[in-house]
Amino acid sequence: MSFERLNIKNMKGYKPGEQIEGPDVIKLNTNENPYPASPEVAAALKNLDTESLRRYPSPLADSFRKAAAKLNNVTEENIIPTKGGDELLRLAITTFVDTDEKIVVTQPSYTLYPVLTDVQGCVLIEVPLQHDWSMPSDFEAYLNSSGAKMCILVNPHAPTGRLLEANYLSQLADSFQGILVIDEAYVDFVDPKFQYNSVPLIKSKDNVLILRSLSKGYSLAGLRFGYGIGAQSLLKPMIYKTRDSYNTDTVAQRLATAALESVDYARGTWDRVRKSRASLTDGLKQIGLNTVPSQSNFVFCQVPSPISAKDLYEGLKQRNILVRYFDQDGLKDNLRISVGSDSENAVLLEAIRSLINTPDLD
Amino acid sequence: MSFERLNIKNMKGYKPGEQIEGPDVIKLNTNENPYPASPEVAAALKNLDTESLRRYPSPLADSFRKAAAKLNNVTEENIIPTKGGDELLRLAITTFVDTDEKIVVTQPSYTLYPVLTDVQGCVLIEVPLQHDWSMPSDFEAYLNSSGAKMCILVNPHAPTGRLLEANYLSQLADSFQGILVIDEAYVDFVDPKFQYNSVPLIKSKDNVLILRSLSKGYSLAGLRFGYGIGAQSLLKPMIYKTRDSYNTDTVAQRLATAALESVDYARGTWDRVRKSRASLTDGLKQIGLNTVPSQSNFVFCQVPSPISAKDLYEGLKQRNILVRYFDQDGLKDNLRISVGSDSENAVLLEAIRSLINTPDLD
Repeated sequence: MSFERLNIKNMKGYKPGEQIEGPDVIKLNTNENPYPASPEVAAALKNLDTESLRRYPSPLADSFRKAAAKLNNVTEENIIPTKGGDELLRLAITTFVDTDEKIVVTQPSYTLYPVLTDVQGCVLIEVPLQHDWSMPSDFEAYLNSSGAKMCILVNPHAPTGRLLEANYLSQLADSFQGILVIDEAYVDFVDPKFQYNSVPLIKSKDNVLILRSLSKGYSLAGLRFGYGIGAQSLLKPMIYKTRDSYNTDTVAQRLATAALESVDYARGTWDRVRKSRASLTDGLKQIGLNTVPSQSNFVFCQVPSPISAKDLYEGLKQRNILVRYFDQDGLKDNLRISVGSDSENAVLLEAIRSLINTPDLD
Repeated sequence: MSFERLNIKNMKGYKPGEQIEGPDVIKLNTNENPYPASPEVAAALKNLDTESLRRYPSPLADSFRKAAAKLNNVTEENIIPTKGGDELLRLAITTFVDTDEKIVVTQPSYTLYPVLTDVQGCVLIEVPLQHDWSMPSDFEAYLNSSGAKMCILVNPHAPTGRLLEANYLSQLADSFQGILVIDEAYVDFVDPKFQYNSVPLIKSKDNVLILRSLSKGYSLAGLRFGYGIGAQSLLKPMIYKTRDSYNTDTVAQRLATAALESVDYARGTWDRVRKSRASLTDGLKQIGLNTVPSQSNFVFCQVPSPISAKDLYEGLKQRNILVRYFDQDGLKDNLRISVGSDSENAVLLEAIRSLINTPDLD
């Protein structure tokens, strides 16, 4: 017998990126940081013992909240720690969007958004990006007329890496009657010269929720830790009502706190990734792959004929190099490649060059 | 402006037990294990490094699933790992119970159930236990007539510690049209002489979901790890659709796996807790507190006049001893006391004796 609710029965689940193990695998498909977390995180890990795990954790991850508030120049009441950014997305939908209400996202975007919308049983509206992956020109007007309760924008955008300006987001938030979720999972890799900072928006707008993740910027994808930044009134129902009562654990809290407190080390890795991103982008262009200017830790590129993106993906996989291929309309000509270390990127470029020059052999 | 859904706006949140820090605090209010996790868990913790946290975790905690399947004599497909037992409860409700459907629990019971029901916006029916805290005599008939989609029973019961027999649960599951969730957060502390084992039920019934937690039995409350046991058809939508895509992290997976693999060590702590439970129960009786026979790691007792349970709770707190007082109808005469180490229990008993004999002085 089948017991699921109808919307669950009818939905498809989320498919995580491949996690193939092995020392020879070059893994450029899930946007992990090529460098490990800071020595301070390593020290926090070594300081843990089983005695500290015997008790329940701090329900609200007090130390982490303090560290995140300090780093972002807000108060602790503007911070909600979560089990990865994904938990924040689920909480936001659970808390604010009823089953008959609408959520607007762009198309393409993070493939988890439709899954979470399906679980809640609300209505997802996907608005196609323009041909050059820029925002639809009438997006602000559309938001107002759609009656949507929530809009989720990932910035820098995934899978293209494009960055929207904070001014644009500010205007959207001002005119939008619902909640604007800005998913900044990749924000740490934005070039500092752009001076992108959306956090001040939360001080004047009670409908902006900013998502942060420690997975990429702090090299802690395995830890599952993220947080939200928003007005106190916006965070309160998530913190005190819909959140699982101990949603983050003692180990993750301590390591995540150490990570934020040693942000200078992380900044060094962001800088290295930005430099590698520039070389990787150049290398891809030289081989003839059309790239989108990226402000994230991945590069989105169009694969030129005669080889198809899928064949290139599979050829690379045969060489133990994993990149991300999206088997969906509008994306089938492209690959998303995480920025690896310089040596990983060099092996990748050589492999692409070889596959493109001899497509029939693979 | 307030953006919450109406059911979120109208609900109250969950209130976790007090977590007062300090070396002098005797903490008997949240049912933690007095002994730390096994040396094997400590070794797994020491073997972790930041490099292992750079990548995403195994989405389904493969190693843990194997260990849990082996321990419970089921297949891996009968296991769903979760972020504490609380996540399993939320997932079960999210997956199976629509907003207009009913969930039946007993009253009193775990105070998180009403909170999770409120979040989902479904209808909670609380059926009062009998005067001696045994099940309502017409419960099976009631379940059938209520049209409930789910029934959640905690066994051993919280906050009383009473154990229902597996046969009784089997009959309920057979006649019930909905899903029977058996919350076995405290099952590790059941006296082996009862030979209680509900796991075989899942092989013949596709509507039984068993909840397990590593918080108490494995001394890992700080880790937030639990799991569900059920028929493959029942678990599938939770595993592949409603679960957050990486709901457990690398650290927790490794430590939880090590904990199950060193279950013999844990069994030793369960035995010690059972022995201490017997002495604590005797001690409380000798002072004049009426106790319920407990099969969990806490003792539920009625506080005799002239002191009120609340005054006794507060008197103990002044002496740095925390126990659990429930400020709700039907429970106001009682305290729930976690079984501590023998020395902690001795200090507690002495403090109770002193407070009862000189109530006016506190």
